Amino acid sequence: MIQKELSQLRINKARLWSTLMNMAQIGATQKGGCNRQALTSLDKAGRELFISWCKNIGCEIRFDEIGNLFARYPGSDPLAGVILMSSHLDTQPTGGKFDGVYGVLGGLEVLRTIHENRISPLNSLEVAVWTNEEGARFSPACMGSGVWSGNLDLNTILAETDKDGISVASALEETGFKGTIKAKPHNIKAALELHIEQGPVLEKQNKEIGIVTGIQGLRWFTVTLYGKPCHAGPTPMEDRIDPVKPMAGIIQAAYQIAEQFSPNSRATIGDITTMPGSPNTVPERVLVRIDLRHTDSDTIIQMDTLFRQAVDKLCIESNVEYSLEEKWRMEVTNFDSDCIAAVEKAAKTMGTSAMHMVSGAGHDSLYISQRVPTSMIFIPCKDGISHNEAESITEEQAEAGANVLLHSVLNLAIK
Amino acid sequence: MIQKELSQLRINKARLWSTLMNMAQIGATQKGGCNRQALTSLDKAGRELFISWCKNIGCEIRFDEIGNLFARYPGSDPLAGVILMSSHLDTQPTGGKFDGVYGVLGGLEVLRTIHENRISPLNSLEVAVWTNEEGARFSPACMGSGVWSGNLDLNTILAETDKDGISVASALEETGFKGTIKAKPHNIKAALELHIEQGPVLEKQNKEIGIVTGIQGLRWFTVTLYGKPCHAGPTPMEDRIDPVKPMAGIIQAAYQIAEQFSPNSRATIGDITTMPGSPNTVPERVLVRIDLRHTDSDTIIQMDTLFRQAVDKLCIESNVEYSLEEKWRMEVTNFDSDCIAAVEKAAKTMGTSAMHMVSGAGHDSLYISQRVPTSMIFIPCKDGISHNEAESITEEQAEAGANVLLHSVLNLAIK
Repeated sequence: MIQKELSQLRINKARLWSTLMNMAQIGATQKGGCNRQALTSLDKAGRELFISWCKNIGCEIRFDEIGNLFARYPGSDPLAGVILMSSHLDTQPTGGKFDGVYGVLGGLEVLRTIHENRISPLNSLEVAVWTNEEGARFSPACMGSGVWSGNLDLNTILAETDKDGISVASALEETGFKGTIKAKPHNIKAALELHIEQGPVLEKQNKEIGIVTGIQGLRWFTVTLYGKPCHAGPTPMEDRIDPVKPMAGIIQAAYQIAEQFSPNSRATIGDITTMPGSPNTVPERVLVRIDLRHTDSDTIIQMDTLFRQAVDKLCIESNVEYSLEEKWRMEVTNFDSDCIAAVEKAAKTMGTSAMHMVSGAGHDSLYISQRVPTSMIFIPCKDGISHNEAESITEEQAEAGANVLLHSVLNLAIK
Repeated sequence: MIQKELSQLRINKARLWSTLMNMAQIGATQKGGCNRQALTSLDKAGRELFISWCKNIGCEIRFDEIGNLFARYPGSDPLAGVILMSSHLDTQPTGGKFDGVYGVLGGLEVLRTIHENRISPLNSLEVAVWTNEEGARFSPACMGSGVWSGNLDLNTILAETDKDGISVASALEETGFKGTIKAKPHNIKAALELHIEQGPVLEKQNKEIGIVTGIQGLRWFTVTLYGKPCHAGPTPMEDRIDPVKPMAGIIQAAYQIAEQFSPNSRATIGDITTMPGSPNTVPERVLVRIDLRHTDSDTIIQMDTLFRQAVDKLCIESNVEYSLEEKWRMEVTNFDSDCIAAVEKAAKTMGTSAMHMVSGAGHDSLYISQRVPTSMIFIPCKDGISHNEAESITEEQAEAGANVLLHSVLNLAIK
């Protein structure tokens, strides 16, 4: 096929959609979502369906020792680096039909399109399904890519158990996902992950494609404030040690820090606990969990510092003792410039409306990008809703993203 | 006895203390507190001990239909109004030895002192034990005085159940506390309640006696704020409907309103709930419970208005929908001036250091004062701690309060 003809190549919208809808039947929920948690019999059924589709177009299937699944469409040169398209098939307990699944089945649709058009790149093309991205049944999330990239220890992870005491190791045996090959990077030239945005930006900006240049840096803080419990009536205000006072200030400080570094900053306070939680007693203890994010690596460090200073100042002013724990830290991830360029070019080829953006959510690509050249492609999802049975995309949106994936792969492959 | 001799009358400190300590053995907890909840077998044992002591000095015992217990030391004129000394014998599950109990046994000690000194006032003297002041086992609190005063409906209250499904009616039958006389005010000239302060003011001011002139007015608000749940990463700050934002402002507004009307104001935020309570999700709903109090009847109304305005303004600014429920309202209670004067005079007779104060906590006297002339006498308690096994007073503090109660009664009675 000549270059001009290649640029005309399109995925099959109807086939992609019906593939997505077939997969969605496995673990379908009453409200139109999916409950197909990692390493369950439903996850097994979903992967087996995926494998049967892959085998239909001549893919080779293999599992690694943490159950990551690779479907390889062999290239003409076994030594040429693999072009990887990957995401996950497991869902949240009340998850949607598209989070992760779209990236895997979009990859399959790319392979089908290449297969039926008898294109034979030098590079092998692979679609990978990472084990337990959601972290709903087993903790932590991004388990498969975390072990693969060397961020998580295999034996520690195999010993992790779900709430019924079943270990990852025995769930891998049970499902037959336990492979013999090592969970570590092989000869990969580029890795692409197609995903729904899980946020409202593309929809609001009326763009079809997000060219994802990286992932936000993040801090999770838990601030515990220690008060002196006393009765709401008899105790004069000036005699109190009231942890709620600095709490209100700390929350406002987090929002102010986000404001100061807008628009690429986030401050989220999702969880506050007051103990004992009696309406007429000053709390003995207050716990606040704060999530700070930014797309710029220096700025997230600055936000971190400012937040800690604010907590300290406010607690000293209120005479309240506190502890601040950093529960999670992720520095800013910058994706590979060649991969980004391949996606930019593909979006141009397709004539789609596209914008650069930074992912707010974590993905397998965060770990993958630490080992091989990586980038992501986003499509809008309705109202930015995800991790929810109401997760929704249109056939046209699905089509646009898969076409950009196809052409990104073609741009990266040696024809 | 002549007036001069009467003024020399003193209660017996050692006897009062040993009475308190004997009662404290019934339901004694490991940590030195008491667990003698309303209408339990322990409450029955406690009341029976109290009754035996009352009978020793010739008191007549009767129960009303909600189990309020009256021990009457008859006066020489059956038509003269009764002088009532009352409080409660039930405790919190992890309660102390003195809350309520001190008022009842202090009253008993006054009767004993009058009895052994062969004083025969025209007025009958009564010590009353109100049913379920604490509200720990059965809700609401101040149940006995509430029915007696007509604030609570007898049949509704009889049908109330504890967490095991046992009704107030059957617990009254079980304990034998169910009386035949109507629960309503009889011919009472004055009602006095001796109580520990349950706050730190007397201790801090180094005063032995609080001459209680009334009870703070109170509002309990529950504010529910409705957000739009979204992921902490992908959703730009300006696209969020975040209920935590106005929450922080509402809390600060409550403190500011208290500050504006200090020092006799209180603002307490004891209970905050975030739903679903995930650290990386903007909450769908936030519940905040706010307790506002003031000693002045006009001011508490003003605080109420200002608070509602602040909530409305902050929620509009943040584009957050809300509901504000008033869960409890108590207007300011002003006690009877003659009763207050009798306590003032008694404190002077005893040469104690005394100060006027307003009760921050609710008491049976709140209801009683709506029907008959009432006031209260406070003594300090260690560090202001109450509703706690660590509740503590000294023998000297107990003595001082009971002597002031004795002389208040003598001041009110017609000798």
